Amino acid sequence: MSLGEFDLIAKYFTHRSARMDVLLGVGDDAALLAVPPGRALVAATDTLVEGRHFLTGTPARSIGHNALAVNLSDLAAMGAEPAWALLSLSLPSPDERWLEEFSGGLLALADSYDVALVGGDTVRGPLVVTVEMLGFVEPGRALRRSGARPGDLLYVSGWPGESAAGLAVLRRSGRFEETADPLVRRHLYAEPRVELGRALGGLASAAMDVSDGLLGDLRKLCAASGVGATLELDALPLSAALRARCTPHERERYVLSGGDDYELLFTVPPGAESRIDTLDREAATAGGPRLTRIGRIEPGHVVRCTRGGRAVEVAEAGFDHFA
Amino acid sequence: MSLGEFDLIAKYFTHRSARMDVLLGVGDDAALLAVPPGRALVAATDTLVEGRHFLTGTPARSIGHNALAVNLSDLAAMGAEPAWALLSLSLPSPDERWLEEFSGGLLALADSYDVALVGGDTVRGPLVVTVEMLGFVEPGRALRRSGARPGDLLYVSGWPGESAAGLAVLRRSGRFEETADPLVRRHLYAEPRVELGRALGGLASAAMDVSDGLLGDLRKLCAASGVGATLELDALPLSAALRARCTPHERERYVLSGGDDYELLFTVPPGAESRIDTLDREAATAGGPRLTRIGRIEPGHVVRCTRGGRAVEVAEAGFDHFA
Repeated sequence: MSLGEFDLIAKYFTHRSARMDVLLGVGDDAALLAVPPGRALVAATDTLVEGRHFLTGTPARSIGHNALAVNLSDLAAMGAEPAWALLSLSLPSPDERWLEEFSGGLLALADSYDVALVGGDTVRGPLVVTVEMLGFVEPGRALRRSGARPGDLLYVSGWPGESAAGLAVLRRSGRFEETADPLVRRHLYAEPRVELGRALGGLASAAMDVSDGLLGDLRKLCAASGVGATLELDALPLSAALRARCTPHERERYVLSGGDDYELLFTVPPGAESRIDTLDREAATAGGPRLTRIGRIEPGHVVRCTRGGRAVEVAEAGFDHFA
Repeated sequence: MSLGEFDLIAKYFTHRSARMDVLLGVGDDAALLAVPPGRALVAATDTLVEGRHFLTGTPARSIGHNALAVNLSDLAAMGAEPAWALLSLSLPSPDERWLEEFSGGLLALADSYDVALVGGDTVRGPLVVTVEMLGFVEPGRALRRSGARPGDLLYVSGWPGESAAGLAVLRRSGRFEETADPLVRRHLYAEPRVELGRALGGLASAAMDVSDGLLGDLRKLCAASGVGATLELDALPLSAALRARCTPHERERYVLSGGDDYELLFTVPPGAESRIDTLDREAATAGGPRLTRIGRIEPGHVVRCTRGGRAVEVAEAGFDHFA
């Protein structure tokens, strides 16, 4: 059976949500939403293009999951509470099995964060997925990139580099179904750090999510804050999987330049270290992402890497779509 | 010179706006926005794909303009005040001249409605443009599709069909530069009915924007409201250009099924006719879109067309991307 555009939206994207703040959802010209009093609205959008952001052959469930996950990650990096999403889906043909998996992946992740899909657009075209994510935050607790100050401690959450390593595995094997492999799973199903972002509100001096490679993204955070930094390569967190399956050269490259990590890179003022230690201990107990101190914010504008206390040159290229 | 992604965003999409409610705009992980107290947030998104929504060869200025215009039209159809936009741009290569024209078209229209571009995403891929539009409305004045009741009068704004006629001219000529032709201009530079939407708040019982053809969109409005309608073909507004340059058959087809009109289709309760007459007279003076009564809402679920008071069959196919 071939579905029309409007049937398709009704069948796969009419999302039941318990949110009381959705005054009007999918089906009208726009959604009507109630932002809680005293909160700032937070809005982000990210696009995934076949062949650029995901390999041809990637399961639809993964594409749906990650399209939402990368936007949740943007909200996490603001310390925001996600609430509502809109989906713009350009796809070559209305393949029902594909749509069922895609919407299943997207809506399962939405449900796990109590996010309502409230609108969107479905058009025929090349496979391009854009999600717009809306949420809110107490204005004084919003995490910006621009607040880092010399002396602040630099942290990263979780296991950067795993996603890039998983991508390398997939490129070699082409076996997308092997999600028992933690690296592959990590690449296909990103885990946005929403709870961590909320916990860092009012605590971190600056934050961003790591999407284009840790070192390149650190340079962006420093540029936004007008500061430099020292990144201690010996301190970088290396997951058990990265240690076991990658050469030292590979894993350093994945961690520094891999991209698609969706970890949080953040700074805290000196003295806040014990509060981060507490969050880290709680994460260790609850199975959340560990927090690792990886350097320090410095005066000036230079981001330098050190190994054994000595400055070293690192060849690095963060992901730039037009480089 | 070839620009990287981040330079490109900085150069073409860093938008200076005087809006005080933009707490944080382009350049962080997400935008921070202040919704006025007591207003509902209104959110819409629409995507334009090359070869589907605009002809290959369409000037970049027109693409930028229309990408925003179609979203402004969605907000107009809700009776909302537009405030902020996000842009997701997938494009094959960072052609600076193209980008300058595209952003020029988009930002000029944004400025004319005091809309701030507050974020987005730029990726390499097929030419696909998604805009997310945010605004707000007094909750009691929001225009929905679902409020039409039997006996309500049915209206349309402006000149539906002109855009489709302009598209036909362009298909024949391929001369995109001929914007002195009002039909071509109308197709390349849609005029969203934002002021009219605001004026209809609290007055119209239902409204939507006409994007997929008047007759098909009327069926959607009726379905959402659980009503039928009579559409009087003799009453349809025909612009001077349509009268002069199209056969009676062509112009009826353009008006009923043309698409890309971005006029407002709306209903008002009986007795509100004089208030619509007043709006129409004001529009006539100010050069705004005229308002034409084209039919009536009926009990039941059938939308029928009449000519000279008699029911007639009309072959019609509203635009459906997957039909």
